[in-house]
Amino acid sequence: MTSKLKGIAASSGIAIGKAFRLVEPDLSFEKRTIEESDAEIARLHESVKQAKSQIEAIKKDARENLGDDKAAIFEAHLLILNDPEIIRLTEDKISNAKVNAETALMETTDMFIEQFEQLDNEYMCERAADIRDVRKRILASLLNVTIPNPSLINEQVIIIANDLTPSDTAQLNRNFVKGFATDLGGKTSHSAIMARSLEIPAVVGTRTATKNIANDEMIILDGLSGEVYINPPEEIIESYKGKLAEYDRQLLEWAKLVNEPSVTKDGVQVELAANIGTPNDVESALDNGAEGVGLFRTEFLYMDSYELPSEEFQFEAYKSVLTRMNGKPVVVRTLDIGGDKQLPYFNLPKEMNLFLGLRAIRLCLRETDVFRTQLRALLRASAYGNLKIMFPMIATLDEFRQAKQLFLDEKEKLTAEGIPTSDSIELGIMVEIPSTAVLADQFAKEVDFFSIGTNDLIQYTMAADRMNENVSYLYQPYNPSILRLVKMVIDAAHKEGKRAGMCGEMAGDETAIPLLLGLGLDEFSMSATSILKVRSILRKLSKVEMEELAEKALQLSTVDEVVELVENAVKTKVQV
Amino acid sequence: MTSKLKGIAASSGIAIGKAFRLVEPDLSFEKRTIEESDAEIARLHESVKQAKSQIEAIKKDARENLGDDKAAIFEAHLLILNDPEIIRLTEDKISNAKVNAETALMETTDMFIEQFEQLDNEYMCERAADIRDVRKRILASLLNVTIPNPSLINEQVIIIANDLTPSDTAQLNRNFVKGFATDLGGKTSHSAIMARSLEIPAVVGTRTATKNIANDEMIILDGLSGEVYINPPEEIIESYKGKLAEYDRQLLEWAKLVNEPSVTKDGVQVELAANIGTPNDVESALDNGAEGVGLFRTEFLYMDSYELPSEEFQFEAYKSVLTRMNGKPVVVRTLDIGGDKQLPYFNLPKEMNLFLGLRAIRLCLRETDVFRTQLRALLRASAYGNLKIMFPMIATLDEFRQAKQLFLDEKEKLTAEGIPTSDSIELGIMVEIPSTAVLADQFAKEVDFFSIGTNDLIQYTMAADRMNENVSYLYQPYNPSILRLVKMVIDAAHKEGKRAGMCGEMAGDETAIPLLLGLGLDEFSMSATSILKVRSILRKLSKVEMEELAEKALQLSTVDEVVELVENAVKTKVQV
Repeated sequence: MTSKLKGIAASSGIAIGKAFRLVEPDLSFEKRTIEESDAEIARLHESVKQAKSQIEAIKKDARENLGDDKAAIFEAHLLILNDPEIIRLTEDKISNAKVNAETALMETTDMFIEQFEQLDNEYMCERAADIRDVRKRILASLLNVTIPNPSLINEQVIIIANDLTPSDTAQLNRNFVKGFATDLGGKTSHSAIMARSLEIPAVVGTRTATKNIANDEMIILDGLSGEVYINPPEEIIESYKGKLAEYDRQLLEWAKLVNEPSVTKDGVQVELAANIGTPNDVESALDNGAEGVGLFRTEFLYMDSYELPSEEFQFEAYKSVLTRMNGKPVVVRTLDIGGDKQLPYFNLPKEMNLFLGLRAIRLCLRETDVFRTQLRALLRASAYGNLKIMFPMIATLDEFRQAKQLFLDEKEKLTAEGIPTSDSIELGIMVEIPSTAVLADQFAKEVDFFSIGTNDLIQYTMAADRMNENVSYLYQPYNPSILRLVKMVIDAAHKEGKRAGMCGEMAGDETAIPLLLGLGLDEFSMSATSILKVRSILRKLSKVEMEELAEKALQLSTVDEVVELVENAVKTKVQV
Repeated sequence: MTSKLKGIAASSGIAIGKAFRLVEPDLSFEKRTIEESDAEIARLHESVKQAKSQIEAIKKDARENLGDDKAAIFEAHLLILNDPEIIRLTEDKISNAKVNAETALMETTDMFIEQFEQLDNEYMCERAADIRDVRKRILASLLNVTIPNPSLINEQVIIIANDLTPSDTAQLNRNFVKGFATDLGGKTSHSAIMARSLEIPAVVGTRTATKNIANDEMIILDGLSGEVYINPPEEIIESYKGKLAEYDRQLLEWAKLVNEPSVTKDGVQVELAANIGTPNDVESALDNGAEGVGLFRTEFLYMDSYELPSEEFQFEAYKSVLTRMNGKPVVVRTLDIGGDKQLPYFNLPKEMNLFLGLRAIRLCLRETDVFRTQLRALLRASAYGNLKIMFPMIATLDEFRQAKQLFLDEKEKLTAEGIPTSDSIELGIMVEIPSTAVLADQFAKEVDFFSIGTNDLIQYTMAADRMNENVSYLYQPYNPSILRLVKMVIDAAHKEGKRAGMCGEMAGDETAIPLLLGLGLDEFSMSATSILKVRSILRKLSKVEMEELAEKALQLSTVDEVVELVENAVKTKVQV
């Protein structure tokens, strides 16, 4: 049946293809008392056998398509299935407690998982996770439901999911994934950021994609409008094939701007930089005409690991980015974990409001050993390029002063050890907490630059969790209060002869760009794939005109009024 | 042994007395396999017998001291203990599964609790809670640990607790509680607010009170300095007895101001109002010289109940407050649940960041039936006094407009029904979200008044959960960024000829008062017990001088600089 869903356009482009559901199956079951334990034990054995053959198949496939290291995890799973103890204890429980196989399996494995997890040892925690995975597979077999295997995808598909976690996306064979449609999420959720980084279209927050879309149904994903067509009629498919061709033509047009300067119609130059997550992203940044890296998120160096990354490992990563950027500015943000980003090997306290808790610089100023290691790695790498260091989640000047002091300490130590470091490293801060925006004039006297982090600044200013669908209507980048805070920051920087950038999602947003240009933003940092489009927009705008526009916007009272103002003013000028 | 703890002075005054630990005992146990089920069943019976006699004793005591309705709950507990099914099934489990009595009890009762809770029926949910309570008592007996019974307190004590929940405080016999010392919490936590409302001293956030203080130890609680002495030497006790006398003398001095106007040394009049939670608090507000109610928190009408309070019930509560305030202004805040305040009968979505989620006006604009009932009750009560209505957690002008429209709808309906309502009800907003403070000039054109809610405004502006000890250093009322936001709100109100008040903790804070006076605040609303002290302070300050002081503070960069400035300027003027 033909139908259509509407979600949030999270990564631009159009995809046409078959649906692949990446959805956790329902594995709930009832605890039952049984009479015939023999029959139940036979069910158990049959399911273990099925699980084994599934894992064998996945392992073979993973080895061929993804390499030996990705296949190794399935080897570990087979070892568990061949462990006689787990199976024997499950059998015993079925016989003695007279419960169904599902219950017996769950209780037995719970015992192992608990024991392993209590050991507080990374290796054992991994084993506990392996047991969970294997149990899931046996349980699915007992309940006769299917677990999707993203690593088995071998044709071009559009992924349909409730939400995509980092571990889901790690398992995807990127050659075959043409787009995502998810139930949950917004413009700043992991799925959305990942899609932009993979340069594939995505529609998130559809609420019902997993409910309405079956495997193999024909899907059109419109990452520009946020629409998802299910089994569309032929004329819609044809029309989208036309749009796809048009979009490809547009991309070719933008591609011509790769070596052009980022100047407005009236000759004002700004900087367009890329947000990157790993050294591998430098390639795409340069290919898309980035004039620098405005945000290097260093969390990935910490999250892709089972222990804290060493100074040496970090040094190599920073050096690699700086070298390849070849003198262009690289702004590295120091560790920003906590909130929605956790590290498996780092025990953060359990908090009721993660976004208002111990995260980013707050954590680094408490765990100074971890922080000093990163600062040393950065200082050593500074000899290889144009490094700027930026501290996240700064709420008070005291915090900046403490962070700077730690930086100076480590620099002095390195110099005493005879290790060369650059003397021109700029130290800046993310402005993402309202207090810092309001007090930007005081900060501007001490910091070297500002970078406005709009994702957090908006959520704190509006007191609305950006991950929470119930209050997503309050995530308002164009709310006049946000524009006023942005203005305070930019004016404060300029008054002290310093530069203000922005590295939140807003910096690459079509409606925001005219306003940000008018407010005087010096550097726009965004997903690499947005840079050329933004350069094209900027070249059609006049800074003087946008200053007038921004002035008007600051005097409005609601987000709708701002959007209307911008749309009326620039619609005729910019055709994207 | 003599020792001393330091915490946060949360409610002023001094208490000297014996410690009463209100601490949840550790009821964890290991699942054990047993050989002799008969012995285990005998242990179970013995513990059930002990639990019964404990409950009988508490019931008798509750009936004598607290009345029949408080005793009824213990009657329900006895019924459960006399239910043969729970005991029989637990025995069966001991015999068949060969587990210890603790495990058998836990698993059997879990089954009952689950069944009751699934029924989604208030009565059954209460039964599930009763089973939990009874189970706790049997388990304590099995494990040979004691459960404290606050309702059994029959002499004057100082409560020592990890933290106090609303249900803990509900059980306390207030005649015997001289003060609280808790491990957790800050100036705005429930325990702190409760202590101020009971007019007893409290020290919170000591971190280790429950670890260091045993039952019946002699304690001195200094709610002015935040110090807690454990078994102090005689000379300290003597010195504190002197301070206690001095404090009592001070209270008598302040009491003389009860009918005096709240004017500064240079003749400027402000309003000192009380924050109240229930109609019963009116008495204390008037006794302490309140010139109005600046915040009537209506949540308590909703939280003390097993279902949504009816229009009639609310009407009577509002009417009672308005009547007794006899024409003095009464600002009623509409329902502010969500965040740390939940309703047992109202299913709020589970959220990762409660403080950034669906709460207060956000919830009311979604559950309009609930909101309309409250508005109707308020409108009907408006005929009996000087009512002002205030909406909490307003982040955008759209939200205020929607709330106002619902108010106007209900007023029109009541008028059509011939029910009288006042035509001069002012509609204001809490300013507790940064966006609203930043855009206060636009809001001031449409709202009738502002009331700054500093508890939330500070936590959002600093992006620091005010309940979270890890980031409590960021809860900075005197941070210059907070003062600037307060100034924006006051200036915006005055420009439109409107009034700005404050009803957060900051309004009764000695360091803040000179600054707030200087910034032009019109109304200070606080715990009733702080009013006379604040009136005494204000009478010694000159508004003109404080304006200069505030102007200087706005140009400072850290909280320490502000505190130093205020202390140097006013130390000589105000001796509290």
